[in-house]
Amino acid sequence: MIRTVDYIDGRVVIIDQNRLPAELKMVEIEDYREVAEAIRTMKVRGAPALGVTAALGIALGARSIDAADFGSFYSELQNVAAEIRATRPTAVNLFWGVDRMMAAAERLQDRPVDEIKMELDRLARSMVEEDEDACRQLGRIGGELLSDGDSVLTHCNAGGLACVGYGTALGVIRGAIESGKKLRVYADETRPRLQGMRLTAWELAQDGVDVTIIADNMAGSLMRRGKIDACVVGADRIAANGDTANKIGTYTVAVLAKAHSIPIYVAAPTSTVDLTLASGDEILIEERSPEEMTHIEGCRIAPVGVPVLNPAFDVTPAELITAIVTERGIARAPYTESLARLRCIGTPLSRY
Amino acid sequence: MIRTVDYIDGRVVIIDQNRLPAELKMVEIEDYREVAEAIRTMKVRGAPALGVTAALGIALGARSIDAADFGSFYSELQNVAAEIRATRPTAVNLFWGVDRMMAAAERLQDRPVDEIKMELDRLARSMVEEDEDACRQLGRIGGELLSDGDSVLTHCNAGGLACVGYGTALGVIRGAIESGKKLRVYADETRPRLQGMRLTAWELAQDGVDVTIIADNMAGSLMRRGKIDACVVGADRIAANGDTANKIGTYTVAVLAKAHSIPIYVAAPTSTVDLTLASGDEILIEERSPEEMTHIEGCRIAPVGVPVLNPAFDVTPAELITAIVTERGIARAPYTESLARLRCIGTPLSRY
Repeated sequence: MIRTVDYIDGRVVIIDQNRLPAELKMVEIEDYREVAEAIRTMKVRGAPALGVTAALGIALGARSIDAADFGSFYSELQNVAAEIRATRPTAVNLFWGVDRMMAAAERLQDRPVDEIKMELDRLARSMVEEDEDACRQLGRIGGELLSDGDSVLTHCNAGGLACVGYGTALGVIRGAIESGKKLRVYADETRPRLQGMRLTAWELAQDGVDVTIIADNMAGSLMRRGKIDACVVGADRIAANGDTANKIGTYTVAVLAKAHSIPIYVAAPTSTVDLTLASGDEILIEERSPEEMTHIEGCRIAPVGVPVLNPAFDVTPAELITAIVTERGIARAPYTESLARLRCIGTPLSRY
Repeated sequence: MIRTVDYIDGRVVIIDQNRLPAELKMVEIEDYREVAEAIRTMKVRGAPALGVTAALGIALGARSIDAADFGSFYSELQNVAAEIRATRPTAVNLFWGVDRMMAAAERLQDRPVDEIKMELDRLARSMVEEDEDACRQLGRIGGELLSDGDSVLTHCNAGGLACVGYGTALGVIRGAIESGKKLRVYADETRPRLQGMRLTAWELAQDGVDVTIIADNMAGSLMRRGKIDACVVGADRIAANGDTANKIGTYTVAVLAKAHSIPIYVAAPTSTVDLTLASGDEILIEERSPEEMTHIEGCRIAPVGVPVLNPAFDVTPAELITAIVTERGIARAPYTESLARLRCIGTPLSRY
C-alpha cells in the first residue's frame, strides 16, 4: 500500500495528485521550499495530509539549517515555518502540524542543535504513523453509522489521498466495508478541480469498491429518487461550535441531505478541530486562481473576459451536521461540549 | 442580431452551439436528416429552439418528398416526423413542433401536394417569428418579478441560444434590464456540458450584462451569504400540475432557493406545458452518453472503468416553484388551474 505522504531516507515522498488518475507518479522532495510549492500547487492536498506534510517540511527545513546555537537555529526555523504557513489558509491541520513541530523545538531548546534536528525528524516521522492509525480508528468508529446495503454520497476526496492513507470520509466507508457491510458509493465529481472524479473514484475503484461518479448537480435528484441513504464528507477546519469548513459544495450537500432527511456525517481527525474559533464565520476561505474554473487540462472552456468565482471551501453550519466522527469518538450536538471533550482527551502535544 | 435558428432560402440555418464560446459558426442545412443529427448532437438545443427546429425539419422533409397524392405524401412525411421525434425525449416542444406541422398537413389534405408543401413552409417560418415574439412578451411580463439591484442566479442556458432569440429565463433578465433595472447575473456552469459557462455567460457578456460564472456547487454558499436575490430557470417540459423537467441540477437550485427563502421562477413559452401529463413523474428523462461526463474537449478526465451517471434533466416539484412565467401571463399555484387557463387562451394550433 503506497502512502500518500511518507518520509523515507530523509526525503518527503508524495504522490503527485495532479497527475491522477492518468498516472501514479511519486515525487521525492529534499528541500522544504519544494514542500511548500507542492502544497500550494496541490500535488498534495487534504487536511490531514497537509498537517503531516507541513510537519515533514519543518523537519526538512531543520536539517538544512547550519547553526550551532538554539537562538540562530530557532530563528531560521521560524522562517521555514512562515513559508509553510503561507501556502494555504483554510485547513487548520497545516498550522497544527507546523505548531506541533515548533513547540517541540522550543521544548528541546536546552539540547544540542543536532539532537533537536533528530528529535524533530523523529516527531515528524511519528506523525506519519499517527495519522494512519487515527484514520483506521476513525473508520472503525464511523463505520458503525452506516448500514449494510447503504448507498453513500461523498464529496471531494477525503480518502487515503487526503491523508497518509485509508482516509477520513472514505475511512468510514472502508471501515463499514471491512466490518462486512456492502455499500454503494456515489462520488460527486467536485468542480473545479474534480477531486471526486479524479481521486475518490480512482482510489475506491483500486480497492474494488462499487463507486459511481456523478456531477455535483446530480446529487439532489438522486436523493429525491431515494437513491442516497447517507452522506459522508471530510473537513478542513471545524470551529468550536461544530461549524465545518470543507470543499466548496459541501454546504449544498448538507442542505439537500436535510431536505431529504438523510444523515450527513463529517469525518475528521481531532487535529481538524480548531477550538480557537467560536464559529465558522471566523474561518478564512481560500479563493483560488480563476484558471482552475476556466481551463481543464490546459483547454480553455470559459468565454474570454467573463469573471468567475473560485472559493475553494464553504462553511456548513453545525445544525445541518448529524454527527462528527473523529478517531477519539463521535461528537453530536451540542458540539461546543462534545468537541471540547474529544479534543481534550490526551492532546497530541502532550507527548513533547 | 443573429438568430439561433432561422429559415433562409429554403435552408435551416443554426448556430453550432458545440463550437461556442470559441467560435461563432453558422451551419446551413438542406436535408431533414441533418436537422435530426443537429438535434441529437446538440448543435441546436433548448426546448423552444428544438420546437422550431423540429418544425423546420418537417418543412425540409416535406420539400424533399416526391409524391403526387396526399396519401403517399403524408405517409412519407410520417417517416420524417418519426425520425425527428426519435432524436431527444424530454423537451416537449420538439413534439409540439412536429405535431403542429403534421396537424396542419392533415388539415390541408384536400389541397394539391405542392400547395401543402408551401403552406408547411409558411407555417414553419411563422413559428420562427412567433417564438421570438413569445420570448419578448414573456420577458416583459417576467421582468416585473425582478427588482432593481437584484443578483439573479440562472442554471444552464435558457437564453437566446435556447430559442430563436432573446431567451426565456434570460428573456426575463433582459426584460428587467430593458425596463431600466440594474441586475447582476450568476451563471451556474452546468456540468456536464457546461451550457451555463459556454453559452449563458457568452451571450450575456455579448450584451454587456454583468455576469459571473460559478461552479454548480457554489450556488448554495452564495445564497447562504445573501448574494442571491432570485433564481430564474427555463423548462423542458412542464406537467399539468406544474412539476417541471429542466436541466439536471435545477432541482438542487430549487431546494437551495427554498431553504434560503429566495424566489425561483420558471420561464417558458406555453408550448412547454404538457397538459397530457398529470405530474412530473410521467416525464421521460433522457440519459446521455457517459463521454459527456468523462471527457472535456476530447481529454479524458475520469478514471478508466468507473461508471458515471449522466441524466440530462431532473424534475422540480411544483411546490418548490414560486411562479411560472409564460408569454401569456404568470401562473402561480395551484398550477393545475393556472396552467390550464394559460394553455387554453388561443392555442397555437387554432390558426390551422
